[in-house]
Amino acid sequence: MIIDIHGHYTTEPQPLLAFRDKQLAGLADAMRKPATSELGITDEQLVQSVQPQLKLQKERGSDLTIFSPRAAGMAHHVGTEATGSEWSRMSNDLIHRICALLPTNFAPVGQLPQHPGVPPKNCIPELERLAKLGFVGVNLNPDPAGGYWTDPPLTDKWWYPLYEKLAELEMTAMIHVTSSCNPVFHYTGAHYINGDTTAFMQLLQGNLFKDFPTLKFVIPHGGGAVPFHWGRYRGLAQEMKKPLLKDHLLNNVFFDTCVYHQPGIDCMAKVIPVDNILFASELLGAVKGVDPETGHNYDDTKRYIDKLPLSSADKAKIFEGNARRVYPRLDKRLKK
Amino acid sequence: MIIDIHGHYTTEPQPLLAFRDKQLAGLADAMRKPATSELGITDEQLVQSVQPQLKLQKERGSDLTIFSPRAAGMAHHVGTEATGSEWSRMSNDLIHRICALLPTNFAPVGQLPQHPGVPPKNCIPELERLAKLGFVGVNLNPDPAGGYWTDPPLTDKWWYPLYEKLAELEMTAMIHVTSSCNPVFHYTGAHYINGDTTAFMQLLQGNLFKDFPTLKFVIPHGGGAVPFHWGRYRGLAQEMKKPLLKDHLLNNVFFDTCVYHQPGIDCMAKVIPVDNILFASELLGAVKGVDPETGHNYDDTKRYIDKLPLSSADKAKIFEGNARRVYPRLDKRLKK
Repeated sequence: MIIDIHGHYTTEPQPLLAFRDKQLAGLADAMRKPATSELGITDEQLVQSVQPQLKLQKERGSDLTIFSPRAAGMAHHVGTEATGSEWSRMSNDLIHRICALLPTNFAPVGQLPQHPGVPPKNCIPELERLAKLGFVGVNLNPDPAGGYWTDPPLTDKWWYPLYEKLAELEMTAMIHVTSSCNPVFHYTGAHYINGDTTAFMQLLQGNLFKDFPTLKFVIPHGGGAVPFHWGRYRGLAQEMKKPLLKDHLLNNVFFDTCVYHQPGIDCMAKVIPVDNILFASELLGAVKGVDPETGHNYDDTKRYIDKLPLSSADKAKIFEGNARRVYPRLDKRLKK
Repeated sequence: MIIDIHGHYTTEPQPLLAFRDKQLAGLADAMRKPATSELGITDEQLVQSVQPQLKLQKERGSDLTIFSPRAAGMAHHVGTEATGSEWSRMSNDLIHRICALLPTNFAPVGQLPQHPGVPPKNCIPELERLAKLGFVGVNLNPDPAGGYWTDPPLTDKWWYPLYEKLAELEMTAMIHVTSSCNPVFHYTGAHYINGDTTAFMQLLQGNLFKDFPTLKFVIPHGGGAVPFHWGRYRGLAQEMKKPLLKDHLLNNVFFDTCVYHQPGIDCMAKVIPVDNILFASELLGAVKGVDPETGHNYDDTKRYIDKLPLSSADKAKIFEGNARRVYPRLDKRLKK
């Protein structure tokens, strides 16, 4: 079985996007507020909307995608905490319906109603609701300010109530920023990658997993710059008298394979233990198009893994075993 | 000849650091202002202060280091524009003296008196002074706000007057952030690497080198996350209908080799053309210590280059030829 742990719902039906427009327009002009949060999207429309994902699963050979709302769509910095809560709930409900309609193709990961300057513990009610609905994890945004980085580092006690609940519910968190409202940061080309690198370095500096030994974080996009600079991070940890990264972080921190060329994946596989690498493509649409150097899509990441000089047992870990271990709720769901 | 293009003066004599303390203390309490900017540092003290660098040059086999003030010491976000100007001038003067005393070991690169929210054109007088003193380039900070990123992207017209002068004077710019006053960003572990990645993506999105075809930027720390995500950047450029990165950026953008392990350098050499890679170690002290996996210092980057499967002609480019081409003023200096 091949599990792609990083997919976003980037093919949302028009009524959801129209609702969001009205919701945000309503902040400026109450007359424009949406009359209802009932979107009237049918099951048939939902199934129709994910045909592109299903087609790619078939073509590229994956079975199940861990599926969450559009990352850039979370936009925690936009609007108010109240509009954000409503938006998160609605986005999550669509994910829930899709995963219920197509349970062999999708497993749900949720969006948290974070808001800049607001304690993360306010997300707990939605987190509990998601757990009851069978979600296997959430996306956790280390910068709800959308490129201005005004909230505390992930190791700050500010985040602890949320971590306690994540640990209690066995919900895995992917550390994933959203869109950037800072013009210096392109979202997929800078902010996402910086978010990954920054989160890892925060965890390296801290001792978070002493307090939360079972918490599991996935750092997407191959961990940002981390594998490329693995020597730098090993050296910094050593200078800070931390344990080896393997012991300090790698029981709790995992990387996906959203790195869109062979030399990048090769570098990752050389330095990151196989047990910490989870197959993912970030379908649909983080980077579109066919690589003229290979004739294949940039984001057809399975091809890169296939070419790694690893045993089939190791590849099976990357494609399935690690995902089931890092997302214990997914494993339970699949066993059902 | 082996040229290390990225060294900082991290062994400054105590009087310089004491001056800076007094200068900043003077902002809070005028009584504490330094009485004079005459530091009383002798030539002998200066030569003594760089013995660690000279020792490493000899031990590791490099000949000349392109030498600039401590990167984290620039701290453009600290104090006022006036204290920053004075601080830059004094820091640059020490670099100038060291390079005059030891001209076969060091070539000078300067610090610009940037300040958050202040037009970069204010740096032109110091830039012109540096050119007259024989400096071969400057460090250009894309985030004078020290981790809050409140100034415009590097492609904004905001920066153009400075670029015009850089081009006119044939001064090469290393894009290098300084310390971070944002607690989310560790300086060498996150802010530096993010700064590199961010700058590259800004350049990718823009068309700066159409306006400044001779401008030369070096992105340090191996280009941040860029080589590791080269497929992502090629794909994003393609989606944005930009030319191939080779044509769009690589006549003007170069990467150093401050990547502290073999797999990282291997990845870089696979994707970045040899003509765009410049040898560097970031001595002294960005990452200290001996890598237990190799028994050598993390920042002994020459060893990684030596092991690359490249011809000796290509290695000569990385070690010398590219530096002389990318820093035309260095080439002239060396020919003298």
